[in-house]
Amino acid sequence: MLSNNVYLALIHYPVTNRENETIGSALTTIDLHDIARAAMTFGATGFYVVTPYEDQQTLARKIIEHWTDGVGGQVNPYRKAALEKIDVTASFDEVLERIEKEHNTGVKSIATSAKMHRKAISTDRLKTEMKNDAAHVIAFGTAWGLADDFIEACDFILEPIQGPRTYNHLSVRSAASIYLDRMCNS
Amino acid sequence: MLSNNVYLALIHYPVTNRENETIGSALTTIDLHDIARAAMTFGATGFYVVTPYEDQQTLARKIIEHWTDGVGGQVNPYRKAALEKIDVTASFDEVLERIEKEHNTGVKSIATSAKMHRKAISTDRLKTEMKNDAAHVIAFGTAWGLADDFIEACDFILEPIQGPRTYNHLSVRSAASIYLDRMCNS
Repeated sequence: MLSNNVYLALIHYPVTNRENETIGSALTTIDLHDIARAAMTFGATGFYVVTPYEDQQTLARKIIEHWTDGVGGQVNPYRKAALEKIDVTASFDEVLERIEKEHNTGVKSIATSAKMHRKAISTDRLKTEMKNDAAHVIAFGTAWGLADDFIEACDFILEPIQGPRTYNHLSVRSAASIYLDRMCNS
Repeated sequence: MLSNNVYLALIHYPVTNRENETIGSALTTIDLHDIARAAMTFGATGFYVVTPYEDQQTLARKIIEHWTDGVGGQVNPYRKAALEKIDVTASFDEVLERIEKEHNTGVKSIATSAKMHRKAISTDRLKTEMKNDAAHVIAFGTAWGLADDFIEACDFILEPIQGPRTYNHLSVRSAASIYLDRMCNS
């Protein structure tokens, strides 16, 4: 099972485009649903949707509200339970501050990437590293993935998810689900 | 890695609604993308989208065409490579017939479900069972999951994906990705 106090963060800035330039990306509604459902299934403590754009923050909050306080939540209580995991913040720094404040402890950040990084570790290794009292937050990049500077600034970097060949263009929804299953069940 | 000749099938009929009644479901575009990308990443041989409704078959083919022969494929060759994995059929029987014909061998069917079934086996056990020359097809249900009759008729049934609690309401996109990762990497 997951260690205590594992959070997820879905990053919309700084991420990359296909030319590896740093950009801000637009919200994808289904990301919120799929990753919240995986967070709930595998017992993550919370799920932060991170975007610096106010209109996108408003959109994220409207979606969450529809499924928690609105009609969606009445129709589908399972979806309500999942989307209640979500909070919206303007930056990853704000995520770290909030978690630190909530648990009165340090928080370790974990980057994910489809590219192999020289400092990348396996989920097994990460699970060993996590056996302490700190809280942890795993960051997932939208668009073409987290920006290099962001990855470098994290405490840990997870190895990319690979199959038998070099192709590893999973959706962020698939990648987040697989990492959580590996952390929880393998 | 995956055994040779593992296919995926995304079933839109017969599946269940929230009252466990058998229904046909509508296509969800993002299912095609996410599951095709996972199929490509983990080395599945092919991915069948199964719907008895002709308008839905036409829609599926239009989406695939856009990303393989159309503008989408020029803009994103990785997406093109994934969506080229997809074929559309009217029924699961047609999937089985096609695979049998292609490989001139028997094909074993594998059901997935979020509900525990008395005959369900782990992915580890399935991998052992798959060490023969037959082709295999793993079926995933849309809506609230595969109908009970469909599951009973399959050769194997995979255990549900679970976290530490009873909640296991993953999207079919997440579930397919996790099962493939387990088959390939654990």
